[in-house]
Amino acid sequence: NVGIQRAEIKQGIREVVACKDNEGKIGLRIRHVNNGLFVALVQQNSPAALAGLRFGDQILQINGQNVAGWDNDKAHKVLKQADGQRISFAVRDRPFERTITMQKDSNGFIGFVFKDGKIKSLVKDSSAARNGVLTDHHLIEVNGQNVVGVKDTVTSEIIEAGGRTVTITVMPSVIYEHIVKCMGNSIMKKLMDHSIPDL
Amino acid sequence: NVGIQRAEIKQGIREVVACKDNEGKIGLRIRHVNNGLFVALVQQNSPAALAGLRFGDQILQINGQNVAGWDNDKAHKVLKQADGQRISFAVRDRPFERTITMQKDSNGFIGFVFKDGKIKSLVKDSSAARNGVLTDHHLIEVNGQNVVGVKDTVTSEIIEAGGRTVTITVMPSVIYEHIVKCMGNSIMKKLMDHSIPDL
Repeated sequence: NVGIQRAEIKQGIREVVACKDNEGKIGLRIRHVNNGLFVALVQQNSPAALAGLRFGDQILQINGQNVAGWDNDKAHKVLKQADGQRISFAVRDRPFERTITMQKDSNGFIGFVFKDGKIKSLVKDSSAARNGVLTDHHLIEVNGQNVVGVKDTVTSEIIEAGGRTVTITVMPSVIYEHIVKCMGNSIMKKLMDHSIPDL
Repeated sequence: NVGIQRAEIKQGIREVVACKDNEGKIGLRIRHVNNGLFVALVQQNSPAALAGLRFGDQILQINGQNVAGWDNDKAHKVLKQADGQRISFAVRDRPFERTITMQKDSNGFIGFVFKDGKIKSLVKDSSAARNGVLTDHHLIEVNGQNVVGVKDTVTSEIIEAGGRTVTITVMPSVIYEHIVKCMGNSIMKKLMDHSIPDL
């Protein structure tokens, strides 16, 4: 199943290499959480998006420097000053997230209710309930496609369009809200890369 | 590496079958979080321990009944009333946890400071920092061995005894504290299964 493959959270640490665009931008916003740095925004069509960075990725190194303990400002400053030709990142794949795969019932429902991207309730004996979907979690991806900041109606359309098997990627809301803090919903909606990922 | 294998968090849902002991006990305490049920205590040498249940496992079904939305009391009542010969559980492996594997340096250090099982700070450029260990997380396992409620000095000894490669299993403290709420530290220390898991 393509959706499951796109959503898969991989073990281990990968190297990501990006360069700046003509305006000197990478298209990335970073947020510090618990002395780690996390990807808070990946702009569509930006070098960060092309390099495969995703919302929730943990950045461990920038150009060989360990970033543990850095704050947002330090990270953004280092990126601003970095040589635009080649910026390397060591990245751990979305450590605060997990994926849950469900099957639609004969009415096309998977069985959870969400508002502003947050899972609010579960339908009894639905596929969501059987598979352990939890409330107070935010939807980050549907079949590997980022839905952060996307209108609920659009997220529902993505779920409907996606075939009988649906894989969602979720994050505890308490952590999600910390990562997106200080970022307007309009920024996420307008700038975030919501494209369907390549495999 | 045996520690990595013991610690591994497996995908998918497994069936666990247990029976009650001579006193009619399974040796399990459950806590509800976000409309899901989670294993909060597995008593040493109990049927729950022998069946391979672990702290943090999410219980999805008990004897075929979906448990989404149940609270602790409902779960404990159903277990109490269940036939002692055979109780089946559908279980998802520790969804709030993740594992991080590190290498000790030449002094035997991996590079984080913890107090009462909670990671408080990271040593600059240590293996912990390079591998993305986060503060405000609780140590749940070391090389797959449960250390919940264990004295810090004992946990340190387990880390020291464990060879050059160390795999820790961690959970965000905000979730950990919710799961163990209402359970005394002495209960966890005395009753919890802290044995080295079989492979």
